Amino acid sequence: MKPYVLGIDIGGTNTVFGIVDARGIVIASGSIKTGKHNNIEDYLDELYTEASRLIEANEATDKIHGIGIGAPNANYFNGMIEDGVNLPWPTPIPLAKLVSDKFGIPVAITNDANAAAIGEMTYGAARGLKDFIMITLGTGVGSGIVINGQVVYGHDGFAGELGHVIVKRNNGRLCGCGRTGCLEAYCSATGVARTAREFLEIRANEPSLLRNIPIEDITSKDVYDAAMNGDKLARDVFEYTGTILGEAMADMMVFSSPAAFILFGGLAKSGELLLKPLRNAMDKNMMGIFKGKAKVMLSELKEADAAVLGASALGWEAKPIVEAVAPAQ
Amino acid sequence: MKPYVLGIDIGGTNTVFGIVDARGIVIASGSIKTGKHNNIEDYLDELYTEASRLIEANEATDKIHGIGIGAPNANYFNGMIEDGVNLPWPTPIPLAKLVSDKFGIPVAITNDANAAAIGEMTYGAARGLKDFIMITLGTGVGSGIVINGQVVYGHDGFAGELGHVIVKRNNGRLCGCGRTGCLEAYCSATGVARTAREFLEIRANEPSLLRNIPIEDITSKDVYDAAMNGDKLARDVFEYTGTILGEAMADMMVFSSPAAFILFGGLAKSGELLLKPLRNAMDKNMMGIFKGKAKVMLSELKEADAAVLGASALGWEAKPIVEAVAPAQ
Repeated sequence: MKPYVLGIDIGGTNTVFGIVDARGIVIASGSIKTGKHNNIEDYLDELYTEASRLIEANEATDKIHGIGIGAPNANYFNGMIEDGVNLPWPTPIPLAKLVSDKFGIPVAITNDANAAAIGEMTYGAARGLKDFIMITLGTGVGSGIVINGQVVYGHDGFAGELGHVIVKRNNGRLCGCGRTGCLEAYCSATGVARTAREFLEIRANEPSLLRNIPIEDITSKDVYDAAMNGDKLARDVFEYTGTILGEAMADMMVFSSPAAFILFGGLAKSGELLLKPLRNAMDKNMMGIFKGKAKVMLSELKEADAAVLGASALGWEAKPIVEAVAPAQ
Repeated sequence: MKPYVLGIDIGGTNTVFGIVDARGIVIASGSIKTGKHNNIEDYLDELYTEASRLIEANEATDKIHGIGIGAPNANYFNGMIEDGVNLPWPTPIPLAKLVSDKFGIPVAITNDANAAAIGEMTYGAARGLKDFIMITLGTGVGSGIVINGQVVYGHDGFAGELGHVIVKRNNGRLCGCGRTGCLEAYCSATGVARTAREFLEIRANEPSLLRNIPIEDITSKDVYDAAMNGDKLARDVFEYTGTILGEAMADMMVFSSPAAFILFGGLAKSGELLLKPLRNAMDKNMMGIFKGKAKVMLSELKEADAAVLGASALGWEAKPIVEAVAPAQ
């Protein structure tokens, strides 16, 4: 078996790629701007040029077993990016085939949250776990569900959208998916900022460090900083966020009874500000037979490497695309 | 391979058992009263006597490949009935071992809803499906989740308790599990009767056929009969029930993206009274990428045979219990 895989993480802003060995060490990495190219061919040309340069510089030519790609709305089953997403090219995009044709190497793709779950299972906090749920708390809320050692793709390749369970059935916030009341609208970085704005309006007479910032400019990082400086309103924002997430996780437990939940992404770094109310709510809302069973852990992947590592782990299972040939009449 | 399996369905009132062949034909069946015996040994004695009589009468001695048992709170992994359930004996009960010792035949056990899912996958509406969710609407609400062709047991054997997702976060009804707001408290047969009682009280001036029945005696069957006779209030009870179930199913979709939901149990026989609002609510609350994808189907198992068939299907995968032996020093 060839000793390396190439991991590619395609985000709306940047595309990061790296050569990874079987122990999960990122040998070398690079990046290009995703948004720079209005057409996908130009983008693939630059990706190929830059990645090839990296491969040659590291004497890895002909040593890449497969390419794993994490990308928004990427479908493991058919290798397509299917739906209108935050990428500069029209969808659907037959991404696996395009990249495989370009590099002459087998390609497997999945969405970014599933890639993170695979990375965690292969190299991180979930090593040895057969049943866990990875929740990515970034601009949105994503999830990768592993049951019996396998990522759950569902019948169509789109399973594991736990950011879109409804946590407020009535009068919920508008979500990017077009519905209202989704977990993502509350427990993402964006959701935290929205909660802060709401609290600042509702509690108009309460002083807060956040009032020094123009209200539309407040980010989750601002809320975190204020909370760490003892700001009551900001701490309440985390209490509110963690409680909603913990309640939702108690509901996820009755579905697949994971041994652990692994939190990943910017908001997961809020530590006990988020984790304390989260654990309280999870415990308080947990069905009796599951009480105390599931661990809540933080991702163990090095943040700078995590996206590439997760994607790369998928490269080990990439297989050449076999074109269907019509049988002779 | 031996040509038959023995399926045993242990309910709070009756235990039904049957000899089943590889095509899913119930060759012969019998039953005993579960509650008749205060101790489990006496119960097992009668079960053994009656099942052996059935096996001999059908010339199936030495032709039973395995025994499959569906029982409340039965754990597939360790063969135990674990928690305090509606059975007359103290728990935990090492059921698989007890039955296997008694009959000298390998035994596999699981809870009743998982058994139903296995039966449906082996002999019923879910043949050929790798991803589906079975929802049993009886006295309670149970579920059996199949992902990638495998029943989801979770890390502890208790996954798939979808009757206990929270559908009303605040001021929800008390559920048998001790929490409030569970799906089961609304969408079980008991839940339908509770809703009818609530509606009769809230809409005190509205005439209804249900007012001819003492309020505490109203059953879901009474509500069904009234609805079929055009009773507005009774129809609204089904509208309410189907809507809550449909909303919950839209949330289940984002978890495992099943190709189908299969409804089973007494309430599933309410037909369009329940299915119409259910489909409407499911569609209205469905995340865009999943719209129109999952079928809602009714169980195809013959009702009289269903429990035994489901349990029996598990008998094909029963393996002898291997006792752990300490290695020599």
